[in-house]
Amino acid sequence: MLINDPATHAAVSAAFDAYETALTTNDVAMLDALFWNSPHTLRYGATENLVGYDEIRAFRAQRPGGDLMRTVVERSITTFGHDYAVANITFTRDGEARIGRQSQTWVKIGEHWRVVAAHVSWMEK
Amino acid sequence: MLINDPATHAAVSAAFDAYETALTTNDVAMLDALFWNSPHTLRYGATENLVGYDEIRAFRAQRPGGDLMRTVVERSITTFGHDYAVANITFTRDGEARIGRQSQTWVKIGEHWRVVAAHVSWMEK
Repeated sequence: MLINDPATHAAVSAAFDAYETALTTNDVAMLDALFWNSPHTLRYGATENLVGYDEIRAFRAQRPGGDLMRTVVERSITTFGHDYAVANITFTRDGEARIGRQSQTWVKIGEHWRVVAAHVSWMEK
Repeated sequence: MLINDPATHAAVSAAFDAYETALTTNDVAMLDALFWNSPHTLRYGATENLVGYDEIRAFRAQRPGGDLMRTVVERSITTFGHDYAVANITFTRDGEARIGRQSQTWVKIGEHWRVVAAHVSWMEK
């Protein structure tokens, strides 16, 4: 198994960065584009469990757009072969004492890297 | 991209079931075996962020073994090609009012399916 092929890692890192920018600026169209359009796609958020692309899209559409900025503390991206990757970060947010964690699984669908599963939570003290 | 090839899905489901049994019976050796032995492996738990196989193994070794039973409420396993998969469940546990979520990314390393990243949390009310 090929781990962290440089070109693959660079492509996933760029996709990850595009997602982070879209998240913190509430670029809903870009967030929607970066998730796999499939009923199999899941996103577990801090306060909701979303199953299927349509539920994820509906959630984003109604989400308040303000105060989304956060600071990435640690970032780990690992790629497997040429089409598969995991991206994990810990983060902080102003006014929140807990550490946040975001886990994403990315798959290259056709020519494009897409999130096929994501999980976001605050670590308990 | 091949999605949910039946033989691949069956193999991942069997590995997932082996992990669930090992977790609820605190079969530490099996839990260790089912995680990828790599410094890239991550496990975000409800109360800890573990980076690298050694940290995960140390955590399991000191974890209290009792009262680990839980009930899987919803399960979603999706496979990509022949070597990649995501497994996501929601679960409940006696004495805990919140819904638990467990996300795993599985990769076939050599001949064996291994968890390369995992995230477990309780959903906030």
